[in-house]
Amino acid sequence: MDIEKANAGATERMMEARPLLIGLGKARDVIPGMRENLLLHAGPPITWDRASGPMRGAITGALILEGKARDEAGAQALVESGEIELEPCHHHQAVGPMAGVICPSMSVYILENETHGNKSFSNLNEGYGKVLRYGAYSEDVLARLRWMEDVMAPVLAEAIAASGGIDIRALLAEALHMGDEGHNRNKAGSILYTTKLAPFVVKATRDADVASEVLRFLGENALSVLNPVMAACKAMADAAHGIEGSTIVSVMARNGTDFGIRVSGLGDRWFTAPVAVPKGLYFPGFTAEDASGDIGDSTITETAGIGGFAMASAPAIVTFVSGTPRDALNATLEMYEICYAEHKYFTMPPLDFRGTPTGIDVRKVVEKGITPRVNTGIAHKDAGVGQVGAGLVRPPMAMFEEALVAFAERYGY
Amino acid sequence: MDIEKANAGATERMMEARPLLIGLGKARDVIPGMRENLLLHAGPPITWDRASGPMRGAITGALILEGKARDEAGAQALVESGEIELEPCHHHQAVGPMAGVICPSMSVYILENETHGNKSFSNLNEGYGKVLRYGAYSEDVLARLRWMEDVMAPVLAEAIAASGGIDIRALLAEALHMGDEGHNRNKAGSILYTTKLAPFVVKATRDADVASEVLRFLGENALSVLNPVMAACKAMADAAHGIEGSTIVSVMARNGTDFGIRVSGLGDRWFTAPVAVPKGLYFPGFTAEDASGDIGDSTITETAGIGGFAMASAPAIVTFVSGTPRDALNATLEMYEICYAEHKYFTMPPLDFRGTPTGIDVRKVVEKGITPRVNTGIAHKDAGVGQVGAGLVRPPMAMFEEALVAFAERYGY
Repeated sequence: MDIEKANAGATERMMEARPLLIGLGKARDVIPGMRENLLLHAGPPITWDRASGPMRGAITGALILEGKARDEAGAQALVESGEIELEPCHHHQAVGPMAGVICPSMSVYILENETHGNKSFSNLNEGYGKVLRYGAYSEDVLARLRWMEDVMAPVLAEAIAASGGIDIRALLAEALHMGDEGHNRNKAGSILYTTKLAPFVVKATRDADVASEVLRFLGENALSVLNPVMAACKAMADAAHGIEGSTIVSVMARNGTDFGIRVSGLGDRWFTAPVAVPKGLYFPGFTAEDASGDIGDSTITETAGIGGFAMASAPAIVTFVSGTPRDALNATLEMYEICYAEHKYFTMPPLDFRGTPTGIDVRKVVEKGITPRVNTGIAHKDAGVGQVGAGLVRPPMAMFEEALVAFAERYGY
Repeated sequence: MDIEKANAGATERMMEARPLLIGLGKARDVIPGMRENLLLHAGPPITWDRASGPMRGAITGALILEGKARDEAGAQALVESGEIELEPCHHHQAVGPMAGVICPSMSVYILENETHGNKSFSNLNEGYGKVLRYGAYSEDVLARLRWMEDVMAPVLAEAIAASGGIDIRALLAEALHMGDEGHNRNKAGSILYTTKLAPFVVKATRDADVASEVLRFLGENALSVLNPVMAACKAMADAAHGIEGSTIVSVMARNGTDFGIRVSGLGDRWFTAPVAVPKGLYFPGFTAEDASGDIGDSTITETAGIGGFAMASAPAIVTFVSGTPRDALNATLEMYEICYAEHKYFTMPPLDFRGTPTGIDVRKVVEKGITPRVNTGIAHKDAGVGQVGAGLVRPPMAMFEEALVAFAERYGY
C-alpha cells in the first residue's frame, strides 16, 4: 500500500476538479436525499440538546420560514420529537456557512465538477451582521430571506442558466490575485461574480427595479460569492475523497459544538472533538465573552487549499481578522508544512506565484504538531443575535490523532 | 521662501483633493475652451510634422469621426493648414490615455474635486488592443467609438447622475487593497466601478439589451475605470499646482515625441525632452522594433502617487509589464526617495499599510539621480496599428534638471 501514491492521486483529483456553477433550484428538488421533514446543518451530526445557540437560532428561523414553528420552543419540540430530522449538509453533497441550515424550500446553488462529474450545493448568502446563518431569526432577517427566495432567486436562476455556467475555480484563481483568500475575504470574488452575472441578470427579468435591487444586493455584499465558492471547494474535496490508502483530509466542518473531519482513505467516518473559540476582532459592543464556539462548513475552503492557507495572497485581510501582513504570509508558509501539494491553479503573487498549500495530510499534522489555520466569522453564543466578529482558529489536534490511529488500524500498520 | 512649507502645502492639497465622478457630457459642451476646430491630445504641445505615428493615427480617426477628414492625408492637410488646431488636454483641465485625442463630439467624464472645487475631464475607455488611443482608426475601431457615443454614453450619463456621484479616491483606495496600482492594472477598480454603476445602468434605459451590453462592455474591460481615475488624479494634481515656492511636479505627460513636466511653483511652463521607448512585454507577433516612443497623459497617475509608485500593492502586474513581485516592491521603495509625502488615503497592505510615495520633488530627483518609474502601455510606432505591449519607462532626467535651474532663477537662489 503506497500512501504517497494515494495522496498524489487524491490531491491531483482535488486540483483538477473544475466546478462550474450551473444553476439554482429549491433544495427539495435538487439536493439528493432532501425531504420535507429534514433540515441540513453545518458540521458533523448534532442533536438539539448539544446544539449551540447560533445553531438553535438558525434551526428556529428555518422552521418559521417553512411555516412549521413559531418560536424556539416550537422548533425544539419538533426536533426533539423527531418530527423534524437534522443531518449534516456534508451527508448530502452540500455545505453551508456558519450554522449552515438549509431547509426544503430554500434555493441552493448547483455546481457540477466538469472533470469528475460530481455535484455540490450551497445556499444563498444573506450578507453580514444579523443573519440566519449566525443564528438570528427576527422578522427583518426572515423578510430578507423571503425577498431572496421570492424575488432574487428566480432572477438568479435564469441569469445563471443563461450564462452557460460560471467557472468558480477560474474566478477564485483571479480573486487570489486581487487580495482575496476565498474564505473571509471574498471582496474581489464577489464583484467578479456580480460583474459576470450582471449582463444576464438584466435580461432575466422585465422589471428594471428588481434587476437593480438584485445587482445592488450582490454587488454590495462582499460575501456574495462565498457560498458558490464553498460549494466549489466541496466538489473539489469530494473528488479527492474515497481514495484507498490516502491520508488526505477531505472534510473539515464545525457545528458550533464539535469540529469534525473526514479522511479520504477512511470512508464516511467522522473524527470529532470539541470546538475552540476563535480569536479575533469584535464588532463594537461585543467581546470574546459573547463568542460562540467555532461553527460552519466554510472550513471546506481550507480543506481545498484556500482561505487561511492562501492568506499570503490577502494581506489586507488582517484589518478584519487581526494580525499583521507578515502574519498572513507566515500562515501560508506554515501550512506548506502539513500539505501534500502546491496548487496548480491557485497561485499567490506575493510568494512569486507559488501554488497554495493543498491537501492536508493527517500524518504531517500529527508528526509536526501543526494543526490547520482557519479564518472564520464569529457568531454570538446566544440564539437570535448574529455575527459579533471575525478571527482565526485552529481545529483540535485530537481529531487528527484519532484519524491517524484509525488509519493504522484500517490499513494494518 | 520656505520650500519645505510650500511642498507640504502642495502635497497636502494633492492628498486632500476628493474628486467625485459627477457626470458625462459632450466635450464641446463641458470642457473649458473646447471649440469646433480644436482637438485635444496627450502630452506637451505638438505639431503634425513632429507627431508620432500613433498620435497621427488618433488625430486621423478623430477627424473621420467628426466628419472632417476621410484619411490620414486629409487629416494632415487640415492640421497643417491650421484649419484644425491641436492643444494639450492639460491646457483644458483634461487628460487622455496614450494619444489622448479628444474631439468636440466625444463624451467625456466630468469630475469635481469636492475639497477645492476644481473640475477635470477625460474621455471614455475603449478597451484593449486595436483602439483609437493607440493610433488605430479602421472601420471597426470607429464603429466601436460610435456605439460608445450613441448607445453607451447616454446610459452612462444618466446612471452617473442617478448615482449621486462616485468617489474615485475612495474607489482607488479600495482597489489598491485588491492588487491594482491604478495605472496599468485597474482590474479591481474597473469591476468596483461596474458594480457601483450597475444598479443605476439598469434603470437608465428601458432597453434590457442595451443595459446588458453596457454592463458587459464595462465589466469585461479591465481598464474601464482608467479614464475616471486619470481625471481624478488630474484634479488632485491641479489642486497642488500653483503653490508659490513649491518644487512638486504637478504634471507629467508624453505626446509620443516629447515628455513634458510642469512644476507647482513654476506656473504653466512645460519642461520637455525627447521620450524614451518603454521596456516591457510584447503581444505575440510584435517586438521592441515595433514600439512607438513613450506616449500618454496616464503618467498623471504617478504624479498623484499611484501607478508605478504603488506597484508594491500590485505584485500580479508583473505578468503584464515584466519583472518579478520583488521588483514591484522595490519600485515603490525607490520612489519614496524622490517624493515629499506618504499618501494619507492610498495605503499598501504588503508594506504594512504604508502610504504610497506622493508628490515628486524636483530637487530630490536631481540630487539623488533617480527619475520616476512609470508603468505604461506600448503603442505601435506606425499610425493605424494599435497596442503592441506594456512595460516600464523612465522620464528623461534633463527635464528635471532644467526645471530645477528655472526654479533657482525664478526664486533667486
